[in-house]
Amino acid sequence: MTVLDIIEKKKTKQELTNEEICYFVNGFTSGEIADYQASALLMAILLNGMTDQETYNLTMAMLNSGDVVDMSALGGCVVDKHSTGGIGDSTTLALAPILACCGVYVAKMSGRGLGFTGGTIDKLESIPDFDTALSEQEFFDVVKRVGCAVIGQTANLAPADKKIYALRDVTGTVNSIPLICSSVMSKKLASGSDTILLDVKYGSGAFMPTPESALELAQKMVAIGTLAGKRIGALITDMQQPLSDHIGNSLEIIGIIDVLRGKKNRLYNEIKEVAVRLLALTGKYDLVTAEKAFQQAIDSGSALTKFAEMVQAQHGNAEYIYNPGKFRLGTIDAVTASCDGYVTEMIAADIGRAVTHLGGGRMTKADVIDFSVGVVMKVAIGDKVKKGDVLAQIYHNGKGLEEAKSLIKNAITIGNKQPAEHKIAYAYVDKNGVKMY
Amino acid sequence: MTVLDIIEKKKTKQELTNEEICYFVNGFTSGEIADYQASALLMAILLNGMTDQETYNLTMAMLNSGDVVDMSALGGCVVDKHSTGGIGDSTTLALAPILACCGVYVAKMSGRGLGFTGGTIDKLESIPDFDTALSEQEFFDVVKRVGCAVIGQTANLAPADKKIYALRDVTGTVNSIPLICSSVMSKKLASGSDTILLDVKYGSGAFMPTPESALELAQKMVAIGTLAGKRIGALITDMQQPLSDHIGNSLEIIGIIDVLRGKKNRLYNEIKEVAVRLLALTGKYDLVTAEKAFQQAIDSGSALTKFAEMVQAQHGNAEYIYNPGKFRLGTIDAVTASCDGYVTEMIAADIGRAVTHLGGGRMTKADVIDFSVGVVMKVAIGDKVKKGDVLAQIYHNGKGLEEAKSLIKNAITIGNKQPAEHKIAYAYVDKNGVKMY
Repeated sequence: MTVLDIIEKKKTKQELTNEEICYFVNGFTSGEIADYQASALLMAILLNGMTDQETYNLTMAMLNSGDVVDMSALGGCVVDKHSTGGIGDSTTLALAPILACCGVYVAKMSGRGLGFTGGTIDKLESIPDFDTALSEQEFFDVVKRVGCAVIGQTANLAPADKKIYALRDVTGTVNSIPLICSSVMSKKLASGSDTILLDVKYGSGAFMPTPESALELAQKMVAIGTLAGKRIGALITDMQQPLSDHIGNSLEIIGIIDVLRGKKNRLYNEIKEVAVRLLALTGKYDLVTAEKAFQQAIDSGSALTKFAEMVQAQHGNAEYIYNPGKFRLGTIDAVTASCDGYVTEMIAADIGRAVTHLGGGRMTKADVIDFSVGVVMKVAIGDKVKKGDVLAQIYHNGKGLEEAKSLIKNAITIGNKQPAEHKIAYAYVDKNGVKMY
Repeated sequence: MTVLDIIEKKKTKQELTNEEICYFVNGFTSGEIADYQASALLMAILLNGMTDQETYNLTMAMLNSGDVVDMSALGGCVVDKHSTGGIGDSTTLALAPILACCGVYVAKMSGRGLGFTGGTIDKLESIPDFDTALSEQEFFDVVKRVGCAVIGQTANLAPADKKIYALRDVTGTVNSIPLICSSVMSKKLASGSDTILLDVKYGSGAFMPTPESALELAQKMVAIGTLAGKRIGALITDMQQPLSDHIGNSLEIIGIIDVLRGKKNRLYNEIKEVAVRLLALTGKYDLVTAEKAFQQAIDSGSALTKFAEMVQAQHGNAEYIYNPGKFRLGTIDAVTASCDGYVTEMIAADIGRAVTHLGGGRMTKADVIDFSVGVVMKVAIGDKVKKGDVLAQIYHNGKGLEEAKSLIKNAITIGNKQPAEHKIAYAYVDKNGVKMY
């Protein structure tokens, strides 16, 4: 077998065997197969597609290229939620304590952010002394005792995916459903959870431009996860405006504390939807009892307490959770409406870019993040505004203010007609099929 | 513009502009575009195709990457014949003097052979003192005075094609009609002739496995040549057995002298077909007068004399042409039939490999060719043979004899039923359409 035989088969629309897929993944990872050969095969896959069986085999080959986390010693349900990424997406930070209150384990290994705002790990590190680099044993102990923990990814999960993704990024082979699916799923299946909820975003800046294409991707990922023996479902959600009205690092922690205190906004609604679906997926709840458990965790204050407990267990200063006023923030400036009308559109990615300009995100791996800067949106799509109304508050330390103001101003369109209401979710899919919202 | 924009367009089946094609060809040749990006684009071209206009633009961009030969000062018709390659294909050596006798110029720059047997240049160098490295001026003078000359390629024709072809060879992107077409035509259009006959082979070992696919390629090449303002036609011919019964370097010169002396065999028939079509293409002849002119050149002996004249003009020993017994050849051995029957099949490529084993071809650029070795076929497909009959004579100098004998024995199939007659040509195509044989 040579890589040319494999390229020839995919070129002529034949199904690749598991042996051929493993030969490619292992050969490319080890450097025996050249990048110019791999990119030719990736383009053939993009144009000629892959069956579910091929996509499953590719996923497993990439998964087996690295470590697989084993959480079975916890002796209970371990749940995970994965978002395909978005601006102001800090849902994980609220979901972890809420779900732990509902009797399931959340053992989350997250990445750092590159571009836009920081990642989940960066946001947590804005809490003084919070340790995102626990040893494996300490991580396991915190999950066992508290019910949830969030650390930086230390395990070497799916290194083959890392190498293949870097090549796809520079060869026009990103937007292939089987390739995106196997990339996401190889890491998810390696992370040790038995129940997975995927949050597949659509809209400008997301991998998938339309809800239909996001649904197609979600169906494929659910099929692969089911083949791998996981309980898995996917929500297809709108990413046309920032998910949270707080965007930044400390600011997003403040936004999460609002939700845990019961403040009902877009972020709250999305977190509730994800939590209820995930609890129902475990089989310990149905949709009605799951919603009750969610409400109980928020209303009783136990989710907020659980968040503080997790912060303390990870050596962070839990006082910040009960008293978010302690977070040091930048100087406030504002972007105001230049005319009367309705907010008809927002370019979420440009609001993210504004935060990067302020110093709240990374352009290169070496950049140091300023936790105290960010943006608080004062309007959402559909809101009526008057000339001079504050559209967004900017927290800054002098750096990048003008660029940020200009980006945000241009990102928000004000028009004459009130737009139709934006639903948070478009559809939900699991092994039983698709439910439209 | 970036190479990713160009990949994106071809991925989504959009037509590339001339600007985009030039950007790719120039960027890849200069090294600005990485090979892994080029191979992704080449695969997208292979799978999504190219229009005639795109193929023409690609051809011209590769042509313009190097030198373009100018023969206009000859003040007459300059013809060229290009074969897509085959075993025992020495037609050029007979065509050059025949066509010169018919009043058209043949100014041929040929490559050296790699693999199987030597190239046209190697074959000519088996004539003692023959100079294939004339200066540009001397080459021009010989063509002007004698009517024909054949030298090694010194001009830097289509270097972009050279680099792109090397990448295609290792990425499974060879068998694309627009890519083969632009590769061949970029070099043909750069070579200074105004009238071109293409000999497109099909069969095992050729680029195109079936006559239908060879015809499709031929039509595309004729379309591109016509767009470039050339008089161009293409014959689609069978490459299922060696074209000449003499295979080797000195042996092929001997085979050509046989043809110029009027010996009627497969090689003679193919040379006649090509010569007549090419003369008719120039517009100076119709098919009937072209055939008469061909016959006159052979029957009068003037084609043989012209060949000797060309050899002399290029400093070679012309006595060898009038007295081919002077060529030093290896010791003779033979492959005989192991049973009675009919020759039903031949693997031409394996007979070529046998000659390489004997030392008559190159495996690497540095190999020195033994001009005196080779194979003389004593049978063709359809011939009746008896056990013990000589199938082929082997001329050797000790090296590789056993491998050669075994390759040739296995390359010739003897069966019970006489196979249908093999026609030399399948079809002819020019700007007026296709004529089937």
